[in-house]
Amino acid sequence: MSTFANTVIKKKFHMSLINALKWRYATKKMTGRVVPQENVDQIVEAAHLAPTSSGLQPFKVIVVSNADLKAKIAPIANNQSQIIDGSHLLIFAAWDNYTEERIRSVFANANTERGLPASTTADYENMLVGAYTNKTAEENFHHAAKQAYIGFGIALAEAALLGVDATPMEGFNPAQLDELLGLNELGLRSTTILALGFRDASADWLVNLKKVRTPKEQFVIEYK
Amino acid sequence: MSTFANTVIKKKFHMSLINALKWRYATKKMTGRVVPQENVDQIVEAAHLAPTSSGLQPFKVIVVSNADLKAKIAPIANNQSQIIDGSHLLIFAAWDNYTEERIRSVFANANTERGLPASTTADYENMLVGAYTNKTAEENFHHAAKQAYIGFGIALAEAALLGVDATPMEGFNPAQLDELLGLNELGLRSTTILALGFRDASADWLVNLKKVRTPKEQFVIEYK
Repeated sequence: MSTFANTVIKKKFHMSLINALKWRYATKKMTGRVVPQENVDQIVEAAHLAPTSSGLQPFKVIVVSNADLKAKIAPIANNQSQIIDGSHLLIFAAWDNYTEERIRSVFANANTERGLPASTTADYENMLVGAYTNKTAEENFHHAAKQAYIGFGIALAEAALLGVDATPMEGFNPAQLDELLGLNELGLRSTTILALGFRDASADWLVNLKKVRTPKEQFVIEYK
Repeated sequence: MSTFANTVIKKKFHMSLINALKWRYATKKMTGRVVPQENVDQIVEAAHLAPTSSGLQPFKVIVVSNADLKAKIAPIANNQSQIIDGSHLLIFAAWDNYTEERIRSVFANANTERGLPASTTADYENMLVGAYTNKTAEENFHHAAKQAYIGFGIALAEAALLGVDATPMEGFNPAQLDELLGLNELGLRSTTILALGFRDASADWLVNLKKVRTPKEQFVIEYK
């Protein structure tokens, strides 16, 4: 490996998350270059490790690199060019509801992995089952979607740290995407998409615009 | 600075996000040690830089280090000990609704910061105002809350990278917390809390339990 390549890799590796977040932006035009599988795996793993309420992880990540499927998704997502020019789409799909079966299954797995008796978490499971099954599917979906967004944020952070461009997209028709991917049958509903690829700086109107955020003094309220 | 301290700091600085996420956990018992202000600022800044839908940043972060106020929050949050033993609470509070004034204000600031005429984003603003004001406050709050959770996820990631323990908490009474902090008057509703501090490994039942996640093959669906 050349010294230059080493330098670049080291630089990325050393980048603080703050600097990575300043570097990233909602890339509008991508080059078509394929994101290395290793990086896609790291981005998905970051979402996989994200914390969620009671550890239930009420969402899945659907990774689409298949060109034919991306072409079918494009018209469902306002034909945003990153669907095609990004090499991978991550679709974050949340549980359509919390059910007793789903809740117990999570704890069964955790207890097995920890070598604990299944009864260890019985009281806690019962509490959760009671709380969630008293709510409507829509309330529960909203809650599950928020958990998916924790993973989505952390996946975005990992992409930025790896120097992979990632465009968050809510501009799509969830019902149509759910139908295309058969998500209803899996008890899932799509919530958001992350297109992964590399910026085409020469053709992207957004790349050189200053990143603007709400003034810090309006964003933070302190009680010292 | 001693060589040991240098080593520790370097080690933290070099930690990949994946390893930081493996290191972190929902700390149950904290020591009371105060998180350095520099680190709190970095964690808040990560949330501040988080992407949100159309860049609207429909949430604020309330940073509570005041002991009296933390003592008042504790009973609203099931008296979880991290409220007291963590040195800072970050409360993520989302807009209770999207309004025309809020939307236009965000773009007015962005155009000013970018040195662009106020008319630059007029069509896009009109589209957003039309879309959001056609929805109910509750629908809009759910949407804003999801954006807050992106920032929440990224703040969690930054805390882990800095070696700061952070416990995500949804187990509190949002209406009571909103009242205590006067959030209704600000058009905000609390969505989630992040307690910042340092783990008390000798007194924390969770610290040595294996971190368990949904098996990867159940978490990811691939279309290659």
